[in-house]
Parts: sequence; structure tokens; C-alpha cells
Amino acid sequence: MTGHSIYEMVKRLFPICRSITGNGVRQTLRIIKQYIPEMEIVEVPTGTRAFDWLVPREWNIRDAYILDPEGRKIVDFKQSNLHVVGYSIPVNRTIPLSELQEHLYSLPGQPEAIPYVTSYYREWWGFCLTEKQRLSLKPGNYHVYIDSSLTEGSLTYGELILPGKTEKEVFLSTYICHPSLANNELSGPCVTTFLARWLSSLAHRKYTYRIIFIPETIGSLVYLSRHLPVMQKNIVAGFNVTCVGDNRSYSFLPSRYGNTLADRVSLHVLKHMHPDFIHYSFLDRGSDERQYCSPGVDLPVVSVMRSKYGAYPEYHTSLDNLELVSPEGLQGGYEVLQKCIECIERNEKLIVTVLGEPQLGKRGLYPTLSIKNRPSQVKDMLNLLAYCDGANDLLAIAELIGKPAWELFALVELLKEHNLLREAD
Amino acid sequence: MTGHSIYEMVKRLFPICRSITGNGVRQTLRIIKQYIPEMEIVEVPTGTRAFDWLVPREWNIRDAYILDPEGRKIVDFKQSNLHVVGYSIPVNRTIPLSELQEHLYSLPGQPEAIPYVTSYYREWWGFCLTEKQRLSLKPGNYHVYIDSSLTEGSLTYGELILPGKTEKEVFLSTYICHPSLANNELSGPCVTTFLARWLSSLAHRKYTYRIIFIPETIGSLVYLSRHLPVMQKNIVAGFNVTCVGDNRSYSFLPSRYGNTLADRVSLHVLKHMHPDFIHYSFLDRGSDERQYCSPGVDLPVVSVMRSKYGAYPEYHTSLDNLELVSPEGLQGGYEVLQKCIECIERNEKLIVTVLGEPQLGKRGLYPTLSIKNRPSQVKDMLNLLAYCDGANDLLAIAELIGKPAWELFALVELLKEHNLLREAD
Amino acid sequence: MTGHSIYEMVKRLFPICRSITGNGVRQTLRIIKQYIPEMEIVEVPTGTRAFDWLVPREWNIRDAYILDPEGRKIVDFKQSNLHVVGYSIPVNRTIPLSELQEHLYSLPGQPEAIPYVTSYYREWWGFCLTEKQRLSLKPGNYHVYIDSSLTEGSLTYGELILPGKTEKEVFLSTYICHPSLANNELSGPCVTTFLARWLSSLAHRKYTYRIIFIPETIGSLVYLSRHLPVMQKNIVAGFNVTCVGDNRSYSFLPSRYGNTLADRVSLHVLKHMHPDFIHYSFLDRGSDERQYCSPGVDLPVVSVMRSKYGAYPEYHTSLDNLELVSPEGLQGGYEVLQKCIECIERNEKLIVTVLGEPQLGKRGLYPTLSIKNRPSQVKDMLNLLAYCDGANDLLAIAELIGKPAWELFALVELLKEHNLLREAD
Repeated sequence: MTGHSIYEMVKRLFPICRSITGNGVRQTLRIIKQYIPEMEIVEVPTGTRAFDWLVPREWNIRDAYILDPEGRKIVDFKQSNLHVVGYSIPVNRTIPLSELQEHLYSLPGQPEAIPYVTSYYREWWGFCLTEKQRLSLKPGNYHVYIDSSLTEGSLTYGELILPGKTEKEVFLSTYICHPSLANNELSGPCVTTFLARWLSSLAHRKYTYRIIFIPETIGSLVYLSRHLPVMQKNIVAGFNVTCVGDNRSYSFLPSRYGNTLADRVSLHVLKHMHPDFIHYSFLDRGSDERQYCSPGVDLPVVSVMRSKYGAYPEYHTSLDNLELVSPEGLQGGYEVLQKCIECIERNEKLIVTVLGEPQLGKRGLYPTLSIKNRPSQVKDMLNLLAYCDGANDLLAIAELIGKPAWELFALVELLKEHNLLREAD
Repeated sequence: MTGHSIYEMVKRLFPICRSITGNGVRQTLRIIKQYIPEMEIVEVPTGTRAFDWLVPREWNIRDAYILDPEGRKIVDFKQSNLHVVGYSIPVNRTIPLSELQEHLYSLPGQPEAIPYVTSYYREWWGFCLTEKQRLSLKPGNYHVYIDSSLTEGSLTYGELILPGKTEKEVFLSTYICHPSLANNELSGPCVTTFLARWLSSLAHRKYTYRIIFIPETIGSLVYLSRHLPVMQKNIVAGFNVTCVGDNRSYSFLPSRYGNTLADRVSLHVLKHMHPDFIHYSFLDRGSDERQYCSPGVDLPVVSVMRSKYGAYPEYHTSLDNLELVSPEGLQGGYEVLQKCIECIERNEKLIVTVLGEPQLGKRGLYPTLSIKNRPSQVKDMLNLLAYCDGANDLLAIAELIGKPAWELFALVELLKEHNLLREAD
Repeated sequence: MTGHSIYEMVKRLFPICRSITGNGVRQTLRIIKQYIPEMEIVEVPTGTRAFDWLVPREWNIRDAYILDPEGRKIVDFKQSNLHVVGYSIPVNRTIPLSELQEHLYSLPGQPEAIPYVTSYYREWWGFCLTEKQRLSLKPGNYHVYIDSSLTEGSLTYGELILPGKTEKEVFLSTYICHPSLANNELSGPCVTTFLARWLSSLAHRKYTYRIIFIPETIGSLVYLSRHLPVMQKNIVAGFNVTCVGDNRSYSFLPSRYGNTLADRVSLHVLKHMHPDFIHYSFLDRGSDERQYCSPGVDLPVVSVMRSKYGAYPEYHTSLDNLELVSPEGLQGGYEVLQKCIECIERNEKLIVTVLGEPQLGKRGLYPTLSIKNRPSQVKDMLNLLAYCDGANDLLAIAELIGKPAWELFALVELLKEHNLLREAD
């Protein structure tokens, strides 16, 4: 089961302290490149414009901790990289508890969890800790130390193009900017890596695959600002791959109007594979579809997920860890995306080559003896043929006749071999 | 509360005996003109053609009564103008009860109510009275007296044009042809008068307002026959203002196909302000939308009402009186129409000025610290921006994101100030 | 009641052994021609191409039986023509029971029924019998005898064209290829015959009627291959007439996309006449709509039925006999199709001739006295007029105003007489 290998990869990437820039991202991309060597790593300098945004300064962190009045290290970045607010500026001071409190973040409703907090675009420093630990702090002077740097540098992302028969593209985007968080985030890049390996291994690809590993928001904006015309020209369907690692629900988040090929294929696959999936609204979005589906960008991008970001209690806390995701959970996320891709690869408008029903019997495709009910495979074949009128693609036909598209793949092949079916112009 | 002033106006107009022509209409219009002096009063001579119709002779009445066999005045026009069938020809005779009965109208199911009856297009005379009184009539000779006249004269209506920034128009039509009836009818002209006063007081009007006070049916036909081309060219939305005075339900009657801006805005406003409103079908129509929405006329006119004509027991009886309507009821009718007009005034197609999400943070519109859930105003702003793609007007966007349009007005202003949003071409 | 005459015709045709070719078909058509002499009988030679198919050899049968080991005739074609598998090749042999079993067909789930089995396109012979009889067969040698022939000959069908005012056509197709089976099949040709007689008797027909009596599948393919261009040019609605004879449900099977005039009219008629009808999907098809609605053929053909083929237990067994169908059942099938045809004949786009509502009062079409509620016929007239805007045909109007189209026929006539309505261009 591929899920085991994906889980091993998640474990390997888990300890790294990622952010939207910095060495944690580079280290992550170098490990991903070990799995998919064709991937290129791209650096974009601080200050580069991306539509309404600028690439921020690069952030790196080496160490951070709080010493209590007795000099004991009570909060330690080396124990959990969630302990430091992302993009914290350097600090090295002794301050009373009252002042420290203004820089502490915890979750009263989840007293055992360390929250994940960032401050990318305003200079600030802070520590995150459990509510339980926070309540145990006694008055006195605390030493706070953050050995970080914010410097001119660059934003780093990975890009893999797998060419196909046509220049039309399927797009996979996933993000690599969260520190030690498992479902949201590492499930995304790791499942994407294994999808890329599978796609790379295929003897035949109809579509070209554009696969990117980027920091969320600023990364997708940067990438779009550099590639928008070709993406708009070529992408037929795209998936923002995130939150595909836990074992609970399946979820779907549509594109802006919910009417693209990516929407159609995802709903078709989920309906047949996981009919109890949760159908979110575009209003519930919160990841890079915010950029991909924005007005004027208008890419056909959706998210097919397990438990959606923001919709499970462990989200953005230290509880979103290696216990929350599992080989089975990752396998489920991997398979549903794989099935979507297969359906896109096999999707085409079809047309029958004869008028009236073909005489299936003389080709051995029809029972010679007519006795009450027809077998169901013959029914499927006749129904498939009935809607192959050049107006419908295979997905539409599958919807019309109430079958998973993948149950029709072999029938389409068979009917093509008998010259009864061809791709419509 | 404006409702109190509207109610005072209803009380003032209540005693007047109106019909589709005559001095009662003129007197009513002269009083309305005291509230909105810009209104013009127009006379259209008897015999003027209006499509398939002719302006009828003018009807006036001075007195009417029935004397019982003992000479007692038992039915008296001066007590209630409903006692006389509208457009009754003059009569001055003594007749036996049996003959009188053919000219009497009462409601067996509402024994305390005097019905409202008219005979505009066939010469006739009659008296209306309560079923209770009718049952008490004893055999004998009765004297019937109606001092009325049917003469060459004119039909009278009021017209007010409030110019706006564009020649495109919002249309308000209300009728002034019923005698002492409160919800259906005086709520209509009185609420319309106060809407006109409010509109007139506005520093800025995007739309021109065409506001007419007409006798029902023949009045709208006459008005249409004189103004149809300009109305078809300019009117973007219209409201037949009627039955806006009682305290019970809210009601909506759509245009012929229910798909105009007037329909969209009314449904949006009612859904958010009064979600339990009654949604009637165009088949339930019975007022001037019969003319405004007729084939070839095709104006975008709807009715937003309180209790709809024909749908409440007091309708067209003496029970539709000053007790049935109230300041609060009138206020409700006034506010819902005002909100519709505000939504039309503010409605426009919007487009964002940047690709991708704007960086709200650098403009102080986004929290600097990311910690689990985003505040809801930020969500609204992002959702608004997401659908400002030039294809949607603000009403459509409000529907897409599930918010009342008026909760978006300030956000639109704010985003326009930041040059992030503009009206689409 | 026409149903009685139809039932008599079913009884007369019941004993004949029909198949897709042969003398049984000819004999059936000759009897039908006695009812509708205008019908032409057409022969199409063996080997003629029809799209992907060829007209098969002609099959005729004179006698067939099985003798048991004691020489008793236990299965006899002369007792029931269902006893022989259709298109059985000749045989005259003595064989052991074990070998005989391979050529026997029965229904374990319906032990009293003889199934109906055919083998048109593979040479084979066989006998059908009840499961009960089959279980009683004892080991031993049986003599099987089938005196049939498969020879170069022809396929036979009947065609009747009833010209109308326009060359646009309504199409009726029914099949005549099943042996002694009543609901599926004889109800079809017999109801069609009486519809043809009724249509032929009409003083005025707007549409031309193309009515064919064909063997199922190969017959419709042959007919289409000879007439497709004119059929595609002219047919506005068509009905595959089958299973219209029993007393149980009403059923509807749509065209491929369910959006043709035939679909609209059938659904309208069934909704109002038999609101509990069963609405099948095109996926449930199984008769000649398989050909008529195939891609590239695309004729607007539906089936309006009583109990649908395949959906009742007696289907394709000896239990589908003269007890299953009834004069009342046939009458119901006849009436519903007749109503569909009437609605098509009367259907037209309508437009009012005046702007605004016509003044119905001056034409005596409106009550002169206005007193609370309008009578319902006046409401219907106003609603009809309101939707006669040139965009809607009468069926659409009937749907919009919630009335059966046939309740509007007289109103349309009346309004046309008053020059208030005319057919739209």
C-alpha cells in the first residue's frame, strides 16, 4: 500500500521548521527532490512583486526559548517548533510575566494543545504554549530568547512539469510552509509527491502535469504572477492538495462557480467512492483556491480532502501530529485524487459510428437468446452507446447512465476496438 | 416614526368618496399635492382611447339614501360612502321591497360588513348594506334616492417625476379610486407619498423616479397608452404600491415571469427582513400589474405588500377601515419598499482591480496575526471580492455569499476608497 | 366504448404465430388492412442492408411437437405457439432427455408460465414449456419435431400516411412480431389501428400522420434506413405504441433527453389525466425508441403505456394473454394517446392582439358587477391572455397557468372569434 510509503515521508519531513521562506522550505524541497528528481527548485528574491503583494524578507530561526525566574528552560523551540510565532523577530531580554503575557498564545478551549501562530507582515515576536503551562506561570522575571533573522533573501518553491501528449495541463498545487503539522500540511506535499511518482511512471500521459510545492498564499501569488497566461491557456483541471491524511471524512471544496471539469470529476469520483463526503461551499475556502479562483485568474481548481482545514479540532495546533494522520488516511486521499486524474485522462467526447443501435450480436457482444431480462453489462453498453452522440464527454455519459466512469473504461475500449465508437471532433 | 405621519394622512383621506373618475379623485390628489407639491395633476377627457379601452364618463355623487315604509332613512351615503354601488346612475323612486332586493348587495358570510361594489361599465344603480340590516327589512314600499351624475368630463391622475443622475427610472404606481377603504387602498397612496417625500429629500439619486397616483385599471391603461415607449426604454424596476398598511403578513406578487430586477430585489429584501413572507404567484394578481406586466407592455413591475388584496377577510368591505391599518403596519410597508429602493440605488456590477486576493493586511483591513479562525467581517470582505468579477451585480453577490445587500454597502465603499473595487463597465 | 372493439381485434389476432418475418406477419397485416384499407403492405428482401444490420432470412413454421418415450404428444405448437423458440431451425430426431434439456426453456420462478424465447441471429432450435411440466419429464428417449423453414424471402411491414394541412408529421409506430402475447404486443397494433381510424375520420388534420406496423428492432431499423431524411425533417412528435392494454398503471418512457414536444405533451396529459403514472427513465427503454432516439437518428419519440414491458410479471410469458388485457385497459391506453394527439393538433404559439388587458366586459366576457372574487373562468381567460405573448405555445401556457390544455381549447376559440388572440408568427 502506497499509504505506508507516504506516511514514512510525512514522518521524515515532520521535524523541519518550515515557514513561507527560509531554510526549512529549502530542506523540505531537497527531500522531496529525492523522491522526484525531475523537480526544479526555484528562488524568487525578496521584494519581487506578485500582483498586489511583494515577496517578504526571508526568515530563519536557529533557537528560541523562555527561561523562568529560576532559570529553567520552560518553553523550548527545540522541543517543538510550534513554540515560536512564525516570523518572530529576534529578542533577548528579561521581562516581567505581565509583559511576557502580551507575547504568549494559548488556547483556553484546548488546554493541552500548542497553537500555531504566525505574524508574517507585521514585525512581532511571540511564544505559543499550552494553556495548562501558561496557567502554571508564576509572577517574576522571565528571559525570552529568539535567535532569528529577517533578511533580504528569497522565497523558494518546487516545480515539476511532466509532459503529456497534449500541452493541455492538469495542475496540482500543494504547500510547504507550515512547521510540524501533519494533516494540514504534510499530507499535502507527501501525497502530491507520490501522485507525481505515479504520473511520472505512466507509459502514456494524455495531459501535461504541472505540479508545484509552494508556500501558501504568497507562493501561489508569486507562481501565478510568473505563469498566468500559460496556465489560463492550458489548465483543464487543477487540485489544491491539502488535508489528505487523516482517517475521518472526505471533503470537497468547489471552484468559484462550481462548474469546471475539476468540480465535475471530483463530485463524480466522491459520489461513487465516498457518497457520504462533505460538500463545502466556496465560501468555506481558506487555502490557495483563494488565489487560483480569484476574478481574472479563474483557474478550474478545487480541493478534494479528508478532514478539511478549520473543520477539525486539532487544526493548527500541536495535536495535528503524526497520530492524526495514518497510512490508511493518506492512502484514501491518494486514491481519490488518483481516480480523479484517471477520469480526466480518460475523459473525451464520444460518438457512435453507426446509425441506430449497432448489431452487437454479430460481434459476440449480445446474448443470442432473448429471454426476459437483459444482462446488466449489455444494458450498460447500450446506455453508453445511446449517449455517445458527440455532445457528451465520458463523465457526462457516466452521470447520465448512473455508473462510475471507471466502470465504462473497458466498454469504451471494447467498442472502439469494434469500430463502433470514436472520439468526437 | 414615519408610520404615524402616514397614518394621519390615511385618516385625512379616508372620508372622501373616490371612484375611477370624479371630484373625489381630484380632492384626494389636491391633498396629496400638499405633501408633494412637485406632483402634477392631469385630466384626460371622457372618450379618450387607451389601447382597447375608452375613458368612461365622469361620475359624481352628492347624496343617496333609502327611506323605509315609515319614511325613516335606513341607508345613508353620508354615513358611509360604501352604501352606494360605485357609478350608480341617478334614481328617485318608491318601489316595493321585492324590487329593491334586486338592487341590494350584502355578504351573508360577513353579516356585519358593508360590501364594496361597483358597476363601471354597465348602467346600474344599487345600495350596499350589512346582511344583518338587510334581513331586518320588512315588506312595504321603500323610497330610493341617488343624486349622482354621469357626464362628459375627465379622468384625473397625479404624476411626479424626480430626476436622478441617469434617465433610467424606478417606477412607483398606486391607485386612488376606492372610497373609504384603508388597507386596500389608502395605505398605497399614503406610503407612496412618503416614499416620494423621502426620495425628493435625497441629496443624490442615481435613478429618476416616476411616481403616479391613478385610478386602478383604466388609469394604468390610460397612463401606459400615453407613456409606453419612454417607460419601456427607461424603467429598470417598478412597484405597484397597494395593501401596505396592516400589521399581519408580508406578501410578494411577482412579475409575469418573476425574473426582473424588481423581482430579484424584492425577494432579496423580503427574505432577509421578513423571511416568513408569503410568495404569491403571478396567477394571483389582481391589480395594475395586470396591465404593467401584460404581453407587449412587459414592464418589470411587482407588488411588495402586507396582507394582499383578496387574501384577508376585511378586503372590499367596510371592515377594511382605520382599525385595520396602523402606524406600525404602514411603517413596515414603508420600510420594506424603502429598502428595495436603496438596494436598487446601490446596485451595480462590480469588479476587483487586482489579480489574486488584494493584500488587505497592508491596508489595515486584515488581522496581522493568523490564529485559527478569521473574523467574520474579513470573511465577508473576501467573499465579496471573490465574486466581484464584473459578471455579478451587488444583489447577485449578496445572494451568492448569503448576506443582505445592505450589509455590504459599507464594505463596497471601503474597498472603493482603497481602489480595490470599481464599477464594471 | 372503443375499447370493446379494440379488444375484439386483439382476440382475432391473438392465435396467429408472428415473428420478425414470415406469413404470420403477413396474415396480421392483412387483418389490420381490413380496419384501415389505406394502409400499404411493404416487403423488404432478405439481405437488404439497414444501417449496421441485414434483413434476416424469412422464417415460417407449420408444426412442432415433442413426443415422450411413450409416444404421447406432450408439447404441441398447435396448442400454443409460445412452445417453440422463435426462429427455430427444423429438427426431426429422437434424443435422450439429457440432450433435450439443453433445448428446453422454462421459468423456475413462474412454474405455470410458458416463456417466450427467440433466437433470431444464431441458428438454434428449442421448446418452451412450464417449469411444472419440465419437472415431470422422465428419463428416456423423446422425439422432437419442428417443421420450420429459414429461406430467402422478405420482411413485411405496414405503412399508412394520413395527409394533413402541413407536411409536418406526427409519427405512430407499433410492432407485430410477437406470437400470442396480449399486452406486449397486440394492445399496440390494435390501439394504433383504432387511433388511425379515428384520425382518418377527422374532417380536419393539422398534421400529417405516419403510422407504421413493423417487426420490432429490425423493422424500425429497416424503416428508418429507408425514410430517415424525411422523418427527421417532418416529425414533430412520435409515439412508440406498446403495452397499452392492461388495467393497472399508466407509464411514461421519455426520449433520450426528455425534452421534445412528445415528452412535453405526454407528461402534460398524464399529469392531468393519471397523476399517479410511473415516470421511467430512458435507461429503462427496451423497444423501438432504442432506434428512434439513437444518436444521429434523434427523433422525438416516447412511449405512453399502461404496464410497461419488463415491469409486470406476465411479461414475455403465456400469462400475457387475453385475461390480462381488457376493453377498459385498452380504452385507457387509447384515450391517453388520443388526448396527446389532440393536444399536439391544437398546440400553437399564441399572441394577444391588444396592449394591456382587453376590455372583456364590453364583449360580454366579464362580469359587469365587481364584488369581491372573480369567477374562475374569467381568471383562466385572463391568465391565458397574460401568457399569450408569442413566446409560449399552448402547452407551455397550460403548464404556466396550471390547467389541462384541453380546458383552454374553447377559451382560445372564443378569444380568437373576438379577435383578441391569434397564432404567433
